[in-house]
Amino acid sequence: MEYLEEHERREQWKKIENALQEDRIDEFRAEFLEMHPYDQAKIFEEQTEETRQQIYTYLSPEEIADVMEHIEFEDIELYFSEMDPRFAAQVLADISTDDAVDILNELDINKVASFLTIMDKESAAEIKELLHYEEKTAGSIMTTEYVVIRAEETVRQAMLHLRTEAPDAETIYYIYVVDEEKRLVGVISLRDLIIAEDDWLISEVMSDRVLSVSVGDDQEEVARMMRDYDFLAMPVVDFKQHMLGIITVDDVMDVMEEEASDDYSKLAGVSDVDNRDDTAFASAKKRLPWLVILLFLGLMTASLISRFEDTLNEVAILAIFIPLIAGMAGNTGTQALAVAVRSIATGEHGKGGLAKLVAREAGTGLINGVICGIIITGIVYFWQGDIFLGILVGISILSTLIVATLAGATVPLVMHKFNIDPAVASGPFITTINDIISILIYFGVATAFLNLHLLITS
Amino acid sequence: MEYLEEHERREQWKKIENALQEDRIDEFRAEFLEMHPYDQAKIFEEQTEETRQQIYTYLSPEEIADVMEHIEFEDIELYFSEMDPRFAAQVLADISTDDAVDILNELDINKVASFLTIMDKESAAEIKELLHYEEKTAGSIMTTEYVVIRAEETVRQAMLHLRTEAPDAETIYYIYVVDEEKRLVGVISLRDLIIAEDDWLISEVMSDRVLSVSVGDDQEEVARMMRDYDFLAMPVVDFKQHMLGIITVDDVMDVMEEEASDDYSKLAGVSDVDNRDDTAFASAKKRLPWLVILLFLGLMTASLISRFEDTLNEVAILAIFIPLIAGMAGNTGTQALAVAVRSIATGEHGKGGLAKLVAREAGTGLINGVICGIIITGIVYFWQGDIFLGILVGISILSTLIVATLAGATVPLVMHKFNIDPAVASGPFITTINDIISILIYFGVATAFLNLHLLITS
Repeated sequence: MEYLEEHERREQWKKIENALQEDRIDEFRAEFLEMHPYDQAKIFEEQTEETRQQIYTYLSPEEIADVMEHIEFEDIELYFSEMDPRFAAQVLADISTDDAVDILNELDINKVASFLTIMDKESAAEIKELLHYEEKTAGSIMTTEYVVIRAEETVRQAMLHLRTEAPDAETIYYIYVVDEEKRLVGVISLRDLIIAEDDWLISEVMSDRVLSVSVGDDQEEVARMMRDYDFLAMPVVDFKQHMLGIITVDDVMDVMEEEASDDYSKLAGVSDVDNRDDTAFASAKKRLPWLVILLFLGLMTASLISRFEDTLNEVAILAIFIPLIAGMAGNTGTQALAVAVRSIATGEHGKGGLAKLVAREAGTGLINGVICGIIITGIVYFWQGDIFLGILVGISILSTLIVATLAGATVPLVMHKFNIDPAVASGPFITTINDIISILIYFGVATAFLNLHLLITS
Repeated sequence: MEYLEEHERREQWKKIENALQEDRIDEFRAEFLEMHPYDQAKIFEEQTEETRQQIYTYLSPEEIADVMEHIEFEDIELYFSEMDPRFAAQVLADISTDDAVDILNELDINKVASFLTIMDKESAAEIKELLHYEEKTAGSIMTTEYVVIRAEETVRQAMLHLRTEAPDAETIYYIYVVDEEKRLVGVISLRDLIIAEDDWLISEVMSDRVLSVSVGDDQEEVARMMRDYDFLAMPVVDFKQHMLGIITVDDVMDVMEEEASDDYSKLAGVSDVDNRDDTAFASAKKRLPWLVILLFLGLMTASLISRFEDTLNEVAILAIFIPLIAGMAGNTGTQALAVAVRSIATGEHGKGGLAKLVAREAGTGLINGVICGIIITGIVYFWQGDIFLGILVGISILSTLIVATLAGATVPLVMHKFNIDPAVASGPFITTINDIISILIYFGVATAFLNLHLLITS
């Protein structure tokens, strides 16, 4: 079976729909449960509430739990509110704890409390513990369904242990070794375990250099580690090395996707770039806030230029280079911003510190400014026959490139340093700031030239 | 042990360096080999050639292979050319085939041929086969080191089989079941295998609904499937369902990172956003090409405005809204571009087709255009006291937003459809195109207004 294409999903659905309409529960279950939960979720999401209600009665809470783990977060609240609360609580208890916590974070606080009251005590306790962790930390993406063994066990005992735990654990491919106080002391991969002789001790075959993350660590940092080290799972510990949970690679892939999408949206000035089946209204709503902010920032630029109306009246030709200069400022700023945001994301900005980065960006701006400045001076001179106009535009490009590069690079870094959400330093914002800076430079230099009677044009 | 921080790496290195200087090979090996290959690579990369030569003699080809798998691609050619060719060939043979192919793709073609000649025949044959696959396809990221079993085997036989193959296989957590012609017929996870009773047949416990990708499939498509389905590995087959290799989740994470970084660089107009320890020169070089292109595109804008010099001389105040209108065009175009690029990346643009998307984007542009147009008309009227100037700017914003949104969304999609590299549809390019469109609209409307004697300003 290949990844279900849209039309395959439709065909499959027809079979399932017939079974539903004619109340053939066995046939429905056979067809539906044969699919991967991801495809089950895709089909489930297309149903009417009536059909969904029928599905809730045809499937066990555990089977619905598999479906729910693959539903988009925006829709999950609806489904849980239309289920019978007792059923919903059971579904939640059957979802792996990390996903259950994510779902509960989407729900109304009263609903969460009532679900946790109805739910079996053990699951509720596990979930409650995880609900405390802050969003985007290791704690928020870890699961508590993992397998631990003791160093004194033999390989045979460990394998028996594993067989019992396997059906419930999130992964059994890394088994963590803890001491009597649940402190993490080692790790052994299932691969090494099945190669080992039955009567060896775990302490002899485990690796005692076990990498772990702290429960408060940033999820991006965790994703980076797992990618660099090619791990399938990673243990999460508290400050005393007590084992609290594990993070598995599937969650890390979701984190990577989410973070990449966030950075990308920010650079583009959209609240969310992923559009699926948005209508024009939904899509306008995601983009309008930025556009309105930018409209007002643009008005600032306009009012700034209006202060130079005298200069413009004197030398109208100045106007024709406004978009060029503002455009170059915007572009170089976006480039610098993108590099800075990526270096924050990959944690590289730490090395050498802010000073080094500022020096580097100033250098980059200077080099590009000198080259672009010389090119434009020549072109404007040959085009307009006015060497002073050429020099004016050239100097403006040079200064603009240095300042705009610095602004693009340092604004997000400074914000990050002061723990301000760098969302405000998004692409269009930096572009507009740099528009303003560049126009100030351009008209400033132009006014100085005019006072020196250098510009002879028109 | 935590992720090695920079200073820990330095400390560790001091120990290792002392061991090297005093020729204490045992101590060097003990300290060096205890680290994760990722950290080994980080330390290795900081050494002088002389020290690297010493390291080549201290480690086996297999140990060097582990280090090489974690080296940045840009540096790998250097290391392989300074090794003794026979040693280098052995190192290559010991690297997992998918990474070996990636490395060979970085090397000179003559060098590749000579390495393959020296290498043991079996490894050379495996690598040669993989070298044929096109870049960015499933074939190019798959490995041939996987475990297959037959459906007629018992669980006990399969486990024995697995124990022998485990040390060399890229993963043993999914075991693929093939028929006598090597056609993929099923899959069983190691988890299910260890739960199963020893004398059951594989055919009884395997799943025969095995998902696979074709060898020519796009690597992004593969990454998406593995993320959606939470797979740790995925089999790769030819068009007759013969098993050719597997793709593991670690390679998929690299693909995700690479693709996200590519999209991001494109939007920002930088050849590569990842900067590590770039100097100002290196960083200027990555950004200059785009800036120079944009300089020339900006000159087109300038020459376009210069055609309206008469209009400008008559109504100099028109100049003050140029950056506002061009800026709005650029911003809305970037938003639409970002959404379009993401929908290409996630394969969602297929649903409903191009026509639907164009209609959606036109609608989005219209809604945002009407809202922003009304706001700006009001503001300009109150500010400048000229209703016709207000209407002029309002109409320009409205038309600009519709056209620029459409341009941002359709240019990359059309390019993608015609298989043109959408790199040319990067952020700054779309922005500049939209600058030009918006200025044409603005001055076009302004000239019409002037001809109708509507503008009374200045």
